[in-house]
Amino acid sequence: MNKNQKLGKASIKPEQPVYILSSGSVVGTKEGQGPLGLLFDMVGEDDMFGCETWEEAESSLQKDAVYLALTKAGLKPEEVSFIFAGDLLGQSIATSFGISTYQIPLLGVYGACSTCGESLTIGVMSIAGGFADRVVCVTSSHFASAEKEFRYPLDYGNQRPLSASWTVTGSGAFVLGNEEAMQGSGTGNDAALAGKAKTRARITGMTVGKIVDYGLKDSMNMGACMAPAAASTIEQHLIDFNSQPEDYDKIITGDLGKVGQRVLIDLLREKGIDISDQHMDCGIEIYDGDSQDTHAGGSGCGCSAVTLSAYILKQLEEKNWKKVLFMPTGALLSKTSFNEGKSVPGIAHGLIIESI
Amino acid sequence: MNKNQKLGKASIKPEQPVYILSSGSVVGTKEGQGPLGLLFDMVGEDDMFGCETWEEAESSLQKDAVYLALTKAGLKPEEVSFIFAGDLLGQSIATSFGISTYQIPLLGVYGACSTCGESLTIGVMSIAGGFADRVVCVTSSHFASAEKEFRYPLDYGNQRPLSASWTVTGSGAFVLGNEEAMQGSGTGNDAALAGKAKTRARITGMTVGKIVDYGLKDSMNMGACMAPAAASTIEQHLIDFNSQPEDYDKIITGDLGKVGQRVLIDLLREKGIDISDQHMDCGIEIYDGDSQDTHAGGSGCGCSAVTLSAYILKQLEEKNWKKVLFMPTGALLSKTSFNEGKSVPGIAHGLIIESI
Repeated sequence: MNKNQKLGKASIKPEQPVYILSSGSVVGTKEGQGPLGLLFDMVGEDDMFGCETWEEAESSLQKDAVYLALTKAGLKPEEVSFIFAGDLLGQSIATSFGISTYQIPLLGVYGACSTCGESLTIGVMSIAGGFADRVVCVTSSHFASAEKEFRYPLDYGNQRPLSASWTVTGSGAFVLGNEEAMQGSGTGNDAALAGKAKTRARITGMTVGKIVDYGLKDSMNMGACMAPAAASTIEQHLIDFNSQPEDYDKIITGDLGKVGQRVLIDLLREKGIDISDQHMDCGIEIYDGDSQDTHAGGSGCGCSAVTLSAYILKQLEEKNWKKVLFMPTGALLSKTSFNEGKSVPGIAHGLIIESI
Repeated sequence: MNKNQKLGKASIKPEQPVYILSSGSVVGTKEGQGPLGLLFDMVGEDDMFGCETWEEAESSLQKDAVYLALTKAGLKPEEVSFIFAGDLLGQSIATSFGISTYQIPLLGVYGACSTCGESLTIGVMSIAGGFADRVVCVTSSHFASAEKEFRYPLDYGNQRPLSASWTVTGSGAFVLGNEEAMQGSGTGNDAALAGKAKTRARITGMTVGKIVDYGLKDSMNMGACMAPAAASTIEQHLIDFNSQPEDYDKIITGDLGKVGQRVLIDLLREKGIDISDQHMDCGIEIYDGDSQDTHAGGSGCGCSAVTLSAYILKQLEEKNWKKVLFMPTGALLSKTSFNEGKSVPGIAHGLIIESI
């Protein structure tokens, strides 16, 4: 029927690559002041983004990121078949109230902070499967809405241990397309920007993660909770694609932070896999931990999404890197599961992204 | 590349049908006492299902439903490529703690009570796209965990208006497979049951819904909130597939209940579409509203999932019906969005399911 394939236990390989036609990133003030600050498309003047609640602010991030991605590709919303979207809030309300204005058929996804990887994975499936020419994938997080959802009211001013991460206020959106869509220019109304549209990278393979639970219960050390899942998916990926860490310029996790990074590298060393030369973590890159008081690093769906859009794709465009394994990581907890004494299982989904 | 197609604005049609190889349904006591009670695979003795919390109970529903579906198909978990799963709880914890034991690569989905339709839609894409031979789709809801998540503590004993629905305690799981998987028998260890495996139905088309928001804010009248989304997806479906209501033996919504049903039929009449002869709603079928005090009807991800597994697929197997449009409906609210005065937008995803 077609030559897309399942590869090994958990991986898939589209017959033709699926292209990242364009992307958009919107972040808050703290991210704007960080090491990647100048690379983001839009930095808010304050973290309310002109809205009345943190949740509305997060919705506006998604709306703006999708707008930027569509505009850069020269596309109108109706030229996109589906939108794959999600966030961290209960019942994904940042998504429900953020993207409804575009009236694109929606398939909502949830993988905690791995959601960016998940949305791209399903997006690639829909295009490589022949069900769509172009789709949008978008995810977001917001420091204040996440603290309210998972931890303490901001006004309470709780202390944070050094292992804690800082939820990124940001949203990253990506327009994916097939070969035909890549060559077409779109018919959007912003012709000036459309002319500048340039395909950013191509996705050539994916590994879908499973739930990995080492029984850790510390929601203030999510890096350690997620590292075993990242280790599991990286190991499975290398087996399924019969590849080595050296085959990638970078192996990039989403938001393990400094503690999780060490756990990940150690866990893989025990299995005879050394990724210490290739490993990079979006959560470590996005803040200057020393001056910004972010402790272990950044986290949240937005962390890997905006870093992919602003930094990773730029490196691939400039051919500084040719091939990376991009692997957002998620911690599958809620305040209810935490309060009921449950552990914090992790999940991680990986995508091979290559320069054009 | 392949002949799967996008159809019209929001629909997709796989080149080859994707088969529902088997399914499993597990419900609580109230559902067991309802009109469909004898049809469910498993009815709990009480709604704790031997667990210590409502959330754990919901997780155990998912675990059991997947076990039943796999066993009936004669499959081991490792013979399934992916699991598409979701529920109503914040951060989908019923799923995270329910299905991890199977160690199947997971892609989590969220579409409120439309999640059953969404998981099947993406599941079909993954198989028809050539990325998997067999996948599992599972969704759940639990009356008590949902009341805690969305409304009041049960002990508070709040009064419920007649427009309110009753969240179904139940989980439905489905094993989907391609033609080859349908003809194979599986190698699971429960040979006796495996021998009885019989493909239940085939999925031949899908219409993906968009967010529809009429500005309604009453979380005790979710049928009215979701009906506009169902009307939108049904209208789009008929346009995309160039079909008429008469082409279906039944047009089956998920959980509109008695109030939502009237709104749906009226909204479609205004557009010149009359589905009054074909319409059926899982939420109306699952309880005897008069004797069970469930008011408008059943709701929740579990409502459409267990009704599909136990009742709808049975009608298709027995050829009482040949072709139905199955359309779970979701209300995109959270307690936070409700408390912040936001509306309750709806979404609905439709699948054409036909007898073999």
